[in-house]
Amino acid sequence: MAGNTYGKAFKVTTFGESHGEALGVIVDGCPAGLELDESDIQRELDRRKPGTSRFVSQRKERDRVKILSGIFDGKTLGTPICMVIFNEDVNSRPYEKIKYKPRPNHADITYFLKYKHYDYRGGGRASGRETVARVAAGAIAKKLLSKFNIKILAYTVEIYGIKASVPKSVEQIEMNIEKNFLRCPDLDAAKKMEEEIERAMKQGDSLGGIVEIQILNVPYGLGEPVFDKLEADLAKAIMSIGAIKGIEFGLGFEFSRKKGSEVLDEFYLDNGKIKTRTNYSGGILGGISNGMPIVMRAVVKPTPSIKTRKLKTIDLLEMKETEIEISGRHDPCIVPRVIPVIEAMVAITLADHMIRAGYINPNTLL
Amino acid sequence: MAGNTYGKAFKVTTFGESHGEALGVIVDGCPAGLELDESDIQRELDRRKPGTSRFVSQRKERDRVKILSGIFDGKTLGTPICMVIFNEDVNSRPYEKIKYKPRPNHADITYFLKYKHYDYRGGGRASGRETVARVAAGAIAKKLLSKFNIKILAYTVEIYGIKASVPKSVEQIEMNIEKNFLRCPDLDAAKKMEEEIERAMKQGDSLGGIVEIQILNVPYGLGEPVFDKLEADLAKAIMSIGAIKGIEFGLGFEFSRKKGSEVLDEFYLDNGKIKTRTNYSGGILGGISNGMPIVMRAVVKPTPSIKTRKLKTIDLLEMKETEIEISGRHDPCIVPRVIPVIEAMVAITLADHMIRAGYINPNTLL
Amino acid sequence: MAGNTYGKAFKVTTFGESHGEALGVIVDGCPAGLELDESDIQRELDRRKPGTSRFVSQRKERDRVKILSGIFDGKTLGTPICMVIFNEDVNSRPYEKIKYKPRPNHADITYFLKYKHYDYRGGGRASGRETVARVAAGAIAKKLLSKFNIKILAYTVEIYGIKASVPKSVEQIEMNIEKNFLRCPDLDAAKKMEEEIERAMKQGDSLGGIVEIQILNVPYGLGEPVFDKLEADLAKAIMSIGAIKGIEFGLGFEFSRKKGSEVLDEFYLDNGKIKTRTNYSGGILGGISNGMPIVMRAVVKPTPSIKTRKLKTIDLLEMKETEIEISGRHDPCIVPRVIPVIEAMVAITLADHMIRAGYINPNTLL
Amino acid sequence: MAGNTYGKAFKVTTFGESHGEALGVIVDGCPAGLELDESDIQRELDRRKPGTSRFVSQRKERDRVKILSGIFDGKTLGTPICMVIFNEDVNSRPYEKIKYKPRPNHADITYFLKYKHYDYRGGGRASGRETVARVAAGAIAKKLLSKFNIKILAYTVEIYGIKASVPKSVEQIEMNIEKNFLRCPDLDAAKKMEEEIERAMKQGDSLGGIVEIQILNVPYGLGEPVFDKLEADLAKAIMSIGAIKGIEFGLGFEFSRKKGSEVLDEFYLDNGKIKTRTNYSGGILGGISNGMPIVMRAVVKPTPSIKTRKLKTIDLLEMKETEIEISGRHDPCIVPRVIPVIEAMVAITLADHMIRAGYINPNTLL
Repeated sequence: MAGNTYGKAFKVTTFGESHGEALGVIVDGCPAGLELDESDIQRELDRRKPGTSRFVSQRKERDRVKILSGIFDGKTLGTPICMVIFNEDVNSRPYEKIKYKPRPNHADITYFLKYKHYDYRGGGRASGRETVARVAAGAIAKKLLSKFNIKILAYTVEIYGIKASVPKSVEQIEMNIEKNFLRCPDLDAAKKMEEEIERAMKQGDSLGGIVEIQILNVPYGLGEPVFDKLEADLAKAIMSIGAIKGIEFGLGFEFSRKKGSEVLDEFYLDNGKIKTRTNYSGGILGGISNGMPIVMRAVVKPTPSIKTRKLKTIDLLEMKETEIEISGRHDPCIVPRVIPVIEAMVAITLADHMIRAGYINPNTLL
Repeated sequence: MAGNTYGKAFKVTTFGESHGEALGVIVDGCPAGLELDESDIQRELDRRKPGTSRFVSQRKERDRVKILSGIFDGKTLGTPICMVIFNEDVNSRPYEKIKYKPRPNHADITYFLKYKHYDYRGGGRASGRETVARVAAGAIAKKLLSKFNIKILAYTVEIYGIKASVPKSVEQIEMNIEKNFLRCPDLDAAKKMEEEIERAMKQGDSLGGIVEIQILNVPYGLGEPVFDKLEADLAKAIMSIGAIKGIEFGLGFEFSRKKGSEVLDEFYLDNGKIKTRTNYSGGILGGISNGMPIVMRAVVKPTPSIKTRKLKTIDLLEMKETEIEISGRHDPCIVPRVIPVIEAMVAITLADHMIRAGYINPNTLL
Repeated sequence: MAGNTYGKAFKVTTFGESHGEALGVIVDGCPAGLELDESDIQRELDRRKPGTSRFVSQRKERDRVKILSGIFDGKTLGTPICMVIFNEDVNSRPYEKIKYKPRPNHADITYFLKYKHYDYRGGGRASGRETVARVAAGAIAKKLLSKFNIKILAYTVEIYGIKASVPKSVEQIEMNIEKNFLRCPDLDAAKKMEEEIERAMKQGDSLGGIVEIQILNVPYGLGEPVFDKLEADLAKAIMSIGAIKGIEFGLGFEFSRKKGSEVLDEFYLDNGKIKTRTNYSGGILGGISNGMPIVMRAVVKPTPSIKTRKLKTIDLLEMKETEIEISGRHDPCIVPRVIPVIEAMVAITLADHMIRAGYINPNTLL
Repeated sequence: MAGNTYGKAFKVTTFGESHGEALGVIVDGCPAGLELDESDIQRELDRRKPGTSRFVSQRKERDRVKILSGIFDGKTLGTPICMVIFNEDVNSRPYEKIKYKPRPNHADITYFLKYKHYDYRGGGRASGRETVARVAAGAIAKKLLSKFNIKILAYTVEIYGIKASVPKSVEQIEMNIEKNFLRCPDLDAAKKMEEEIERAMKQGDSLGGIVEIQILNVPYGLGEPVFDKLEADLAKAIMSIGAIKGIEFGLGFEFSRKKGSEVLDEFYLDNGKIKTRTNYSGGILGGISNGMPIVMRAVVKPTPSIKTRKLKTIDLLEMKETEIEISGRHDPCIVPRVIPVIEAMVAITLADHMIRAGYINPNTLL
């Protein structure tokens, strides 16, 4: 029952299947007067598109976005903005043979059981390709947030057990992550991670990892207790991305190894502004932002499309056990491609809460 | 802006401040014909109420629930069910002195900044006491789910770094967790955990921990892609509990240390039913339940109400740095009291999705 | 499926059955800092309560409201406000005999068919008594709107075909409607209406009527196209009141007898403010308020609880035709009691749209 | 703030401006397994498209729909269905001169005031052209309802004061309305109505009218008290159409001229089925369908685009009074073109409530 809309004030509704005609999104609730054109969207889409490095899927999609509504004279109208990305390099042949043989860890089986009729080509609606629509919507949210100086940084901090050492300085992080395709702020670790990915790729295997996100310059007061707390909505937003299997805020799971007295963010005054010297809480107290950076981490599972061996499955027509081999074009490590999607979902959530908390006028920026 | 409602088909709206008149909840969307009386609710409330062991807050609340509507002749009517718990043992005196001196890691500061006017007594709306309303609503959800044989198990698996070894057998888990107030399935670990809590209590300190949740007998097909995926909604539900700072599904953060080939849940047929031998995915694929148990873990932070030392804060009236001492009645380890709250939020989410997926008739069970 | 919540930013959730324990409401989304106490609510409840004139139901309910949450130190907290009205003068005996014999034009039959189990006492949830909760919520909305100078006037303009002549001057209307219990602005017509009601009452019959509503000092810009237009939301709000069977805006159904050229509200400047000399459109263009008074009319059906004769119905247990006589305590004309309910629903809708359009800060008035 | 989505289970989100790139809609919540192709949609679009008779706007739009998602192998997937209609015959020149001179009774002024930046070309988002997206969505709803035998009949019953006499027999109505473009079931009245429209057209004037709607074969039990009553949701749906200024159910405004005893729909048994001989209530009791036909009427205002004279308005740039002449291509009577839009909104509302009440499985028809 109708689950393709996210957000209450800045509302995003996506559509599209991996091998269908097109994917896209309607953004409803962006105020009027925001300067916006297709290049703002395209820039973000280019960051997640396939075919850009030897490590990612070789499907060749230009991912050209077309804005169909909501913009006039270079500015948003306050009306719904529909954006469409037509599919171009669709090759459905490899999927014919898995039509009734669900791939392990994929959504084939659950879509089949739930809907009875499903699009098995390239994962259909469950494909990672669905996230192109999120990135398009996120690009608008980012542009809107940039007017309020809010910035989202997402970067790789772990791949296959190799942990990055994250610099304290935001500037240092920003500089380093632009220097490697994994967006890892520790350049030595990045090199080792790449080597592991290369090895996995050669084996037809895949690797997962952990992404850290920092949201900077967040005003205090975002988040609506007790259910639409900022952490709750961010968790939902990020957990709705297919590859993500966990999320933590501030010290996260490490909290279970600490005493209360060791993790208190005590207050001080910094030129009349209330701040905390530490940020174990990750910028959120009682579900409401406190003005410190919001910090969280999300885990990306290794893609299940591996080629190291045959996989045991069920022939759904004959209801008997069988085996399949995965073919098609896949990424050995999708972490770098998930990063812009995480950024997009974070941006959408923040834009939603900025309007809900009264920081952004819901009608117009003019 | 209005964030106190959770759920779309089974809709829960809570109200109440820690030291106000009462706390409570309206459950809207429970079908007619469910046998229900106050004892069904009371049983669950008794599990989270304060004053039941030496380790938990000594505030004495009987937490007597009163059902005000929605039930007639012992059965639900399909109309909204309002339940109220009046506050009894309210002692606001200890809070007078922190009125304008926000406690670190508490919501005092964010409520003050967001609303300008807030109830500083006992945390007001941000108090853990708010969860009594969730547990009441969860009791109805649990009763409803029990008609469909769905069972929720939640238990402690880690406290202050002491990890429990979780038995494979569900029966073993169920038996063990009833034997200790931490609901830890490993009795040896439970003993060590209790010792650490005792030590922390003596120091005026507090400890956090990790709770694991298993949902058994879940039918396939629950979860509404692409945003209301089951994982996304469970994450939101659980992350909306004040003390929780992270959540993971299946293998969770461990996925970042594995290759794809190591974590595939391959299919087999078990008497004509499609199953997987492993369950790294935690019972959910593509955001939809696959019929295997749903497995997740959540981290509970140590309560910030510690008494080991004075804490640095700001006098908000005079806007200068100062110090406070925490007094009042607090728990050294809230993990056991969070467990019924987690169960409640899981039950509410499942009830919501059972209706949304068409398994439960939204009008009536009769 | 869950239909007891109205509003998106100023969210109202009601509960309660006519002969149950209590009725009440949670208002979620009222900003912090609004001065509010029980007397603000009580004043409005007293306007709709039964037993106040010989023409209305003789059920004796004091309708004492109790605020359970959301207020502290005389001001709203921005947290949910729960208000409860306990039932006192419940006499369920007259309803025993219609338990399985649905009264024509009542909701008995539809509740029975939909839910299988229903509360037949006094109409249960479908009773007009349910509206006490709406009036309580409306009292808060009115208080909030009064800060922004918005005023709602509702008055009787027709009873059993007797039409009132409505004065042009708002002051005249305000003065006259306080002079008769029907709140009719035409005192001569009011007298004739009362005579007809007296006659109907003696016959055990009932009468309907038409209520006109004016909303004054509405800022331009309220209403969110294309579905949450102001007219659409007002129509929904008012049509959700049991007794209402139609609604019209501005010239309403009269538009079908006019040419376009006859009903144009042309613009002029009044001290630099854009106004229209006529107001055929009723203050709304394209679903958005234009700054002129909003004008609408709603029709109230005669109550179906009549005693002039036996009524044909079905014995649901034996599934055969039978007859019943209506007893119990009923109003010969509910129009005056519906008026405060209409005002409440209008106030709630306006408060919701004032927040949605950014006129009221969603967090706090302070 | 985000008002372009309608429905909770069958959710419709529209986009598009009159002279923009395209208009369209996402339908989210249609179950899998419904046979559907573009011709199902096109048939409905053709009924409302401009340029089909001498009485309607001469804008030449083929209104070719393109389905971008949600369909595979000729059946719905249960995923969102996006449909797009590209604009072709756009002529924006006539609108240049009214850019800052709002047309009376149009939304020009309110969009300008609300959003500051708006698309003045052809009414932008406020154009009647927006309804093409509703009709596309309605076509899917209709197809879905047809599986459950539900039928929607809408026809003209009044134009400029000329009232049609409506046959009792549904078959007679169906037969007659196909015989005239006004879809009037009284052929004599239809002729007179056409003459009046012809006269108005020659004068450059416009006429309004009343549309009656019957929904046949509705199961009992649709509608979710107390706010999402069937009448409330139908009222909202229909009142959200730009040209509509009033709606009534059953006897409607006539109820104010009747005694309670005159309008009772008493029950009888018809082959074991509970029915009423009369249907003053219009098929809904207590906000829930009772199994009788749902009957309502809506009033359509005359279009404000008239050419009989110059119209007084304000030059918004110079803030002084001025005059404009309306040009462009307009309909002298939009009633016949509003009819398919009303049908669409009714169908969407019914589909939504059929799912909400558990009559339609939300996942799949298979």
